[in-house]
Amino acid sequence: MTPEEFREAGHALIDWIADYRQQIPQQPVRAQVSPGEVRQSFPGQAPTEAGNFAALLRQLESRVVPGITQVQHPMHFGWFPSNASLASVLGDIASSGLGTLGISWESCPALTEVEEVVCDWMRQLTGLSEAWQGTIHDTASTACVTAMILARERASDFSKNHQGLQAVPRPLVVYSTSQAHSSIAKAVQLAGFGQDNLSYIEEDAYTRAMLPEALAAAIESDIANGRVPAGIVCSVGATGTTAMDPVADIAAIAARHNIWLHVDAAMAGSAMLLPECRHLWQGVEAADSIAWNPHKWMGTILDTALFYVRDTTHLERVMSTNPAYLQSTADGQVTQYRDWGIPLGRRFRALKLWFHLHLDGIDSIRARLRRDLDNARWLAEQAAAAPDWQVLAPVALQTVCLRHVPRDSRGGELSGGALDKHTLAWVNEINQSGQAFLSPSILDGRWMVRVSIGVESTTRAHVEALWQLLRTSAERAAGRR
Amino acid sequence: MTPEEFREAGHALIDWIADYRQQIPQQPVRAQVSPGEVRQSFPGQAPTEAGNFAALLRQLESRVVPGITQVQHPMHFGWFPSNASLASVLGDIASSGLGTLGISWESCPALTEVEEVVCDWMRQLTGLSEAWQGTIHDTASTACVTAMILARERASDFSKNHQGLQAVPRPLVVYSTSQAHSSIAKAVQLAGFGQDNLSYIEEDAYTRAMLPEALAAAIESDIANGRVPAGIVCSVGATGTTAMDPVADIAAIAARHNIWLHVDAAMAGSAMLLPECRHLWQGVEAADSIAWNPHKWMGTILDTALFYVRDTTHLERVMSTNPAYLQSTADGQVTQYRDWGIPLGRRFRALKLWFHLHLDGIDSIRARLRRDLDNARWLAEQAAAAPDWQVLAPVALQTVCLRHVPRDSRGGELSGGALDKHTLAWVNEINQSGQAFLSPSILDGRWMVRVSIGVESTTRAHVEALWQLLRTSAERAAGRR
Repeated sequence: MTPEEFREAGHALIDWIADYRQQIPQQPVRAQVSPGEVRQSFPGQAPTEAGNFAALLRQLESRVVPGITQVQHPMHFGWFPSNASLASVLGDIASSGLGTLGISWESCPALTEVEEVVCDWMRQLTGLSEAWQGTIHDTASTACVTAMILARERASDFSKNHQGLQAVPRPLVVYSTSQAHSSIAKAVQLAGFGQDNLSYIEEDAYTRAMLPEALAAAIESDIANGRVPAGIVCSVGATGTTAMDPVADIAAIAARHNIWLHVDAAMAGSAMLLPECRHLWQGVEAADSIAWNPHKWMGTILDTALFYVRDTTHLERVMSTNPAYLQSTADGQVTQYRDWGIPLGRRFRALKLWFHLHLDGIDSIRARLRRDLDNARWLAEQAAAAPDWQVLAPVALQTVCLRHVPRDSRGGELSGGALDKHTLAWVNEINQSGQAFLSPSILDGRWMVRVSIGVESTTRAHVEALWQLLRTSAERAAGRR
Repeated sequence: MTPEEFREAGHALIDWIADYRQQIPQQPVRAQVSPGEVRQSFPGQAPTEAGNFAALLRQLESRVVPGITQVQHPMHFGWFPSNASLASVLGDIASSGLGTLGISWESCPALTEVEEVVCDWMRQLTGLSEAWQGTIHDTASTACVTAMILARERASDFSKNHQGLQAVPRPLVVYSTSQAHSSIAKAVQLAGFGQDNLSYIEEDAYTRAMLPEALAAAIESDIANGRVPAGIVCSVGATGTTAMDPVADIAAIAARHNIWLHVDAAMAGSAMLLPECRHLWQGVEAADSIAWNPHKWMGTILDTALFYVRDTTHLERVMSTNPAYLQSTADGQVTQYRDWGIPLGRRFRALKLWFHLHLDGIDSIRARLRRDLDNARWLAEQAAAAPDWQVLAPVALQTVCLRHVPRDSRGGELSGGALDKHTLAWVNEINQSGQAFLSPSILDGRWMVRVSIGVESTTRAHVEALWQLLRTSAERAAGRR
């Protein structure tokens, strides 16, 4: 394809995208397709001859769009927000258009240095000190695997350079809580520690935050039993209920035993753009690594996961390779991001953050986050005041965890399996309707519903409409029992 | 930013990209900036107020473009090709514009199912049997880490679910050669095996291919010494000289000992689109995993790395997590790609491959690859016939490894450190000039120059111009000695 052909097709595509974004509110939130339906709409073999762009756009429309769950929809309240702000989309388009290659500083100096610039801007915007240096990973999952490997290598005196983890004489242990994101257990497993060496520390029964005294006791006990505490993953805004582990207390314990402390703030990092929220990760300066995703609530399109460390020497010692074909005269004077993560090649992801910050401005981003915090508080107040509704966890940010607990025929509160059945009945009805989308999840062994507020286009009116829908659906489900 | 603002800015950006791509041949190939120059052109803090798009485009032009090494330039012969075909760029733009979220089938059924479709198309186009199922990773490096973890878990009976690698009684060993890409050693280290348990097998002195009899002997010896062979990484088109390890012979040995065999065809996978090249990985059907990068020679923009496995049950058992908040009614009927790799969240990368195949057509992609093979053969013939030039390795694909070895003052061939100095002198002169770019690399302890042909826009005329430039520069450097 020539640049002139690209120009013509590109204009058509931009119009298509603008139209598409405009009509999202008219789409069902959750895709209405059945398993296999999209796949079966495609031919079994690749096209051989070149086809035209108009035909491709029509196929995109007819085959792909019905298979999209609309996470940019103002009535999307599932999982966590996954905003793809149009300002950051433009940065992503610029990145694709430039067609750069990030495998070393030399392969694209601008790719490396703009990443340094925006990671430093984001450091300042979240109130972190100059002690931190950042890079962009694809996801917080990958950042966590990296952190677990950093922890492993610190505790094993760089076993990777010798006989590996398999020759480490005493078991290395990682600590977290049951609230931590599933990627934490996965990271611990992938890094080779083994699931049995992931120690889940007791949480506060209501806030679900890690109890520091329980952590200290577990560590003491492990040491007494010949095990080596290697890592702690502290969740700031855990997925289930946005539980906030107490970073300062945990960091003090980590420091006492020289344990790598990774702060997983995948969701809540966006809140740290707001000075009034920073108490939620108080003590973070004493951590060893931090990961958070601008591609969630802040809205810099996926994949934009920030990973900060203080000890970049350790990072590079663990992650570096230096083959002859990648050496250059700039070595030693520049950052080689290939030595800061797993992949060698990288896209020019920094442009997404730059465009987003430049075109929207941090002030407007902050205003939007405050709007969402406000909307979450409003919804929690409504639910707390309404008969039969329970708010199950503190609303630290923008997620409200709810159950509708109607009375059963004998006047007692519905409970056990019957309550589960009721919860899933009304939430699935809403999700299937396409009017809104919410994530059912399990808390204390029972299903509940997470209302995660924060889509860029979600206003108070949408949250009000949701609250109306929740009540109608739950009460209708209760009436059918 | 509203869709209408996006529409206006998007049109301007498309024009900018089309113009940019058109004038690449007039740019220096290697960026001419010094370390820190791009970074210093940016303000120290993020912008607070929203800025306009025209100003941002001007900054992109003035600050970023000078810091780009032009890997889409027809005179770029460095590393390996990293083509970002404009057809695939359009697919990437569509992906960004849609703003989808891939964390489960339910979060975007189309994202999962189009990935299944295109991975299957690519399987057929490279002549692989239906036994293989694929997914798209960011890079072959990440695919290799995944493969090494799969190898570790097979050899350790799922140690990750118990006490981890640290409790495995006998050392697990991985086999490869010194020609393997740096990401192989990194993957072995990250997966916890330890560098000492990566066994480099002897290579053929000319082809640099792994010697199967040496591999068999190493394995026997390790078993006799109480070590457990766990994985083999077989390079099909290794980075230095595109060396081709003999897959069939290696696979037979792997099968005999139940060792996980990973085929790293990061570069050479593109060649497998050509039936006449498939003898180069003959025996691949008996491997356990294969990785290759359409984002190299084939030209589907980075990041597009295909990863195929035969035993998806093993893959999912190693990589899966199933938290409550990601469960849905579709579970069991659909593919959950989060269980096929490290990250949870993924972009809609399949669109890049779909757009590329649809808009360019596989026939034209194949014709381009054949053009490049032809150009490489032509260059190798010129060098072989020219006085003082040496072709150092078989030209299996599109990479030609060269040295210019002039006579010294006593009529003997230049050698040792003096030859290194000469090689680096002429190649650095070319690279600094911006007229062309080549990767110096080390072979048998001495610097050489890799001419890697395969940029989408590189025609025979460009290769002829390069050959002229090589001779002029090398002879001038020799004359200055």
